[in-house]
Amino acid sequence: MVVELISVGTEILMGNIVNTNAAFLAEQCASMGLVCYYQTTVGDNEKRLLETVNTAMDRADLIILSGGLGPTGDDITKEVCAKATGRKLVMDGASRVAIEKYFEKMNRVPTDNNWKQAQVPEGCIVMHNDNGTAPGMIIEHEKATLILLPGPPGELIPMFNDSVKPYISGKQEAVMVSQTVKIVGMGESAVAAAIADLFDSQTNPTIATYAKTGEVHLRVTARAEDEKKARKLLKPMIKDLKERFNEHIYTTDPEITLEEAVVELLVNNELTVSTVESCTGGLVAGRLINVSGVSEVFKMGHITYSNKAKRKIIGVKRSTLDKYGAVSEQVAREMAKGGALLSKSDVVVSITGIAGPDGGSEAKPVGLVYIGCCVKGNVRVQEYHFSGNRAKIRASAVAAALVLIRECVLEYVSQVTFGKKK
Amino acid sequence: MVVELISVGTEILMGNIVNTNAAFLAEQCASMGLVCYYQTTVGDNEKRLLETVNTAMDRADLIILSGGLGPTGDDITKEVCAKATGRKLVMDGASRVAIEKYFEKMNRVPTDNNWKQAQVPEGCIVMHNDNGTAPGMIIEHEKATLILLPGPPGELIPMFNDSVKPYISGKQEAVMVSQTVKIVGMGESAVAAAIADLFDSQTNPTIATYAKTGEVHLRVTARAEDEKKARKLLKPMIKDLKERFNEHIYTTDPEITLEEAVVELLVNNELTVSTVESCTGGLVAGRLINVSGVSEVFKMGHITYSNKAKRKIIGVKRSTLDKYGAVSEQVAREMAKGGALLSKSDVVVSITGIAGPDGGSEAKPVGLVYIGCCVKGNVRVQEYHFSGNRAKIRASAVAAALVLIRECVLEYVSQVTFGKKK
Repeated sequence: MVVELISVGTEILMGNIVNTNAAFLAEQCASMGLVCYYQTTVGDNEKRLLETVNTAMDRADLIILSGGLGPTGDDITKEVCAKATGRKLVMDGASRVAIEKYFEKMNRVPTDNNWKQAQVPEGCIVMHNDNGTAPGMIIEHEKATLILLPGPPGELIPMFNDSVKPYISGKQEAVMVSQTVKIVGMGESAVAAAIADLFDSQTNPTIATYAKTGEVHLRVTARAEDEKKARKLLKPMIKDLKERFNEHIYTTDPEITLEEAVVELLVNNELTVSTVESCTGGLVAGRLINVSGVSEVFKMGHITYSNKAKRKIIGVKRSTLDKYGAVSEQVAREMAKGGALLSKSDVVVSITGIAGPDGGSEAKPVGLVYIGCCVKGNVRVQEYHFSGNRAKIRASAVAAALVLIRECVLEYVSQVTFGKKK
Repeated sequence: MVVELISVGTEILMGNIVNTNAAFLAEQCASMGLVCYYQTTVGDNEKRLLETVNTAMDRADLIILSGGLGPTGDDITKEVCAKATGRKLVMDGASRVAIEKYFEKMNRVPTDNNWKQAQVPEGCIVMHNDNGTAPGMIIEHEKATLILLPGPPGELIPMFNDSVKPYISGKQEAVMVSQTVKIVGMGESAVAAAIADLFDSQTNPTIATYAKTGEVHLRVTARAEDEKKARKLLKPMIKDLKERFNEHIYTTDPEITLEEAVVELLVNNELTVSTVESCTGGLVAGRLINVSGVSEVFKMGHITYSNKAKRKIIGVKRSTLDKYGAVSEQVAREMAKGGALLSKSDVVVSITGIAGPDGGSEAKPVGLVYIGCCVKGNVRVQEYHFSGNRAKIRASAVAAALVLIRECVLEYVSQVTFGKKK
């Protein structure tokens, strides 16, 4: 089934708000196996909205419209959809009662234009709105089915979950199932090169690459008549990818983030962690603390942006700073070691670098970053050269720090396991 | 001039990412006085993308496409735009050199598909990409001008600001000049209520509100035949807004961020700053360290997520933690005071709260955050109730911490100034 999304609202066209409804609806539709080829945003203008709805009816089975169901004169989504499907608007008794009750509860009196919200295209399925006054509507037309949802996310999301999802499920024949393979330690083009053959020969399942900061995601999607068969189709492809990318894969769960994978690895191995940051200024700790359960392993973080803080808090030697400079392999090493001593953590990551735009030199250009990771006393330091502006260099360094923690912990764990086996 | 936005990418169609690029571009275009009637999202599919570009060329003067310029086989935006404008792709020498240098700097070897990124439609204007390997392109066609931008926001935003904005300005007859008034310490509806009269009577200049995390931005835009005249039109409106919002305005410069304003305030008053964070886990320090010149004033940061770290590092009393709990006015106060003692900074901000999803109770619900600010020994603590998920609560707390630093420093400065005058 092909779905198309139409977002109605001048505030999206003007950039006043970010269209999170489209992302929510798109993800939900994808997870239900609907194929989406187009999303359109159009303003509250009758001619252009009608044109957009007509175009969508020619190319999709299902059209989900959001927004423009409010009580004011420039809310015209319902009127335009009635026109597009050749229906007149009629008063819906249940919606009228719901609006009455809603205003009673709010201790307010409905104005004339509130009753406009109880009017619906004749013969449509009305969806009750628990969180506002605009009912949703499903108009089953011969060419396509139109689903009209209110714009506020607090009304749209529950209405989708409670009414639209069951409606669509009841109409479906094929099911689509996706799995995401998340890869670190390789660039997008290296990943693409490693799967060029799969990419060229893809039919079902299909495969797509997504570049993220410091990560590459592969999404594999299979289509079948039921979920079980779709999962069966996915299996050999996922197995193949696991063989190709091996330890570069940190998860195959679309919900798991890199920081969650790192925290899970630490929790599973009962390793505590602390951070000592210079140019990233707390963002590595910030990402680790994104993870709700991090308190089990996270001990403390230090932001030693100045040389003085590096010396006083962490105990980096003045002579090391003088001889090698703050951005050096040696200082990253002393930061990781000093952090371990201070925090008594099993794992300490340290970052020192030049995020720019100032502070670079020929020998130490902007983008040069040293990241150290100390695991139970053993320190590994890596040199990185990131590009981009200050924010991008810092974001890249944060991702690289998480990847380095993961690598060092995996290495440590494999040594311990190997040692035990002996 | 009519502009149309086309976002290219299956990851948007599938809802993997929220389309923040469209919001950014829409806001920028609106501020330049461009009229936008449609935004379309389409996948990496040649037929559908070509159709979308052709439709847009029939109804707009300027089409901004984002995404699909990557090195992989499914990146086809450039190829499709070349086809739509009847051009062939040619190797761009400068882009080839830039890619070479980019990989050299990263210590990596380009793969064959990286060179694909140096190919551009013949006769187009190539925009250099400082933050990635995909150059941007401007194709001036008789029907419409196509502007192709890379999808990652870290590449798209600077390229838009540095290259696209001046290009569009050069083509415009009327000049649109905007000024942004950035407000903190008031909610969106309070700001809207305070300017309801201006809002209703607006013609030239116009006024628009944008809600950001912890901030409300007002954009005032004047249209005139030249910049000088436009600026003259802006002046009385800006003066009026300054009178209405007074010290709630932290800048009227669109480029200045809240953290930059805070750092500037500290630098100008020669006040050093340190941070002690719990639930925000380093993100306040992270935002301060966004500012390139922060090293003049930033001394150190501590992330004391656990109670033990709060005691050992910062000296919060065990009895205070036991009696009031980690999330309390008293602990926020001791964190700020302890941080001041440890860091010998003039200003210390402390944050402790419940970001959720776990850890809330009826007495202390998720979203409860205490922020303390110590300026030269005087501590002020404020209680906040934020809503949303973990990420949103933390982002709100970070913004509130910056706002509180600003308020406390302004208060201190006014006292000192007043004292001197006496």
